[in-house]
Amino acid sequence: MPHIDLPEGVPGIRSGFEFRPETAAPLCDLAEVLLRGDNTLSRGERELIAAYVSNLNECFFCQSSHSAFAAMQLDGGMDLVSQVKRDPATAPISDKLRALLAIAAKVRVDGRSVTSDDVEAARAEGATDVEIHDTVLIAAAFCMFNRYVDGLATWAPTDPEAYEENARRIVEYGYTA
Amino acid sequence: MPHIDLPEGVPGIRSGFEFRPETAAPLCDLAEVLLRGDNTLSRGERELIAAYVSNLNECFFCQSSHSAFAAMQLDGGMDLVSQVKRDPATAPISDKLRALLAIAAKVRVDGRSVTSDDVEAARAEGATDVEIHDTVLIAAAFCMFNRYVDGLATWAPTDPEAYEENARRIVEYGYTA
Repeated sequence: MPHIDLPEGVPGIRSGFEFRPETAAPLCDLAEVLLRGDNTLSRGERELIAAYVSNLNECFFCQSSHSAFAAMQLDGGMDLVSQVKRDPATAPISDKLRALLAIAAKVRVDGRSVTSDDVEAARAEGATDVEIHDTVLIAAAFCMFNRYVDGLATWAPTDPEAYEENARRIVEYGYTA
Repeated sequence: MPHIDLPEGVPGIRSGFEFRPETAAPLCDLAEVLLRGDNTLSRGERELIAAYVSNLNECFFCQSSHSAFAAMQLDGGMDLVSQVKRDPATAPISDKLRALLAIAAKVRVDGRSVTSDDVEAARAEGATDVEIHDTVLIAAAFCMFNRYVDGLATWAPTDPEAYEENARRIVEYGYTA
């Protein structure tokens, strides 16, 4: 049961958004620009970083949601997302994305743990400064979203279909609709 | 040295904001509504939660900045801020704020570690659902800001005067000016 009086039957972060529209607005704007704005990283790749970090943080709602959003926007679908969550080192993704996921994993633990070697490794695979910046910020932002969702003990559906339905909505209309 | 080509001489998070104005806008909007918007928690109290979490995360730039912002907006000034960072259990603050800081400290580690007992304890001291919500989100947001600042290895001034000067600007004009 949620820790505060959140609207009933509204899943995960969306219950926090309905409870507090004042803070929902910038949070949705942030998700929109980070995960769907113009970028040399595809929307699927950015959702994959979000799903990967949320999975490491063991946030059931966020990892289910962003896995579904990533799966719907990546050629490899949910199989690829599952492989990345299991082991990015062996998953069939580009070496650039692999290097960015390694940075994301470090940011998740502590920003200070990212080394110049990590960044050089990403750059050697063709990552740009903006891509590195956005990877750091996506990982950091999901350390916020995950804690927000779990710190309020929001309700999360267990039926995968609920996440797929939500994914169709997000992929079509985005985070600020 | 920063991991990417951030503008030189611009401190901490502000270098990330100048590098990427697209993501700066929602991040600044979030700080403004969370830390300065209408609220039954004073601006000083909210900055204190931000400083406390940033100090636990050992983010030098954020903890220095928000300690200065809190000190400027609390009767007890920097002495009080230092006492809270050292030991909130014995610092001369309200029992409500003490209970909210305990929730913030748990969110920092993992949202799932917040218990109904923690929330009931805050409620027993008069905390409202909105205050509990905002405490969770402030703590979560600083888990993002801290990782963003440190994950890019941004430059942080060591001179306390730099933070006081910035505090005067933020207290007067806010985060979105």
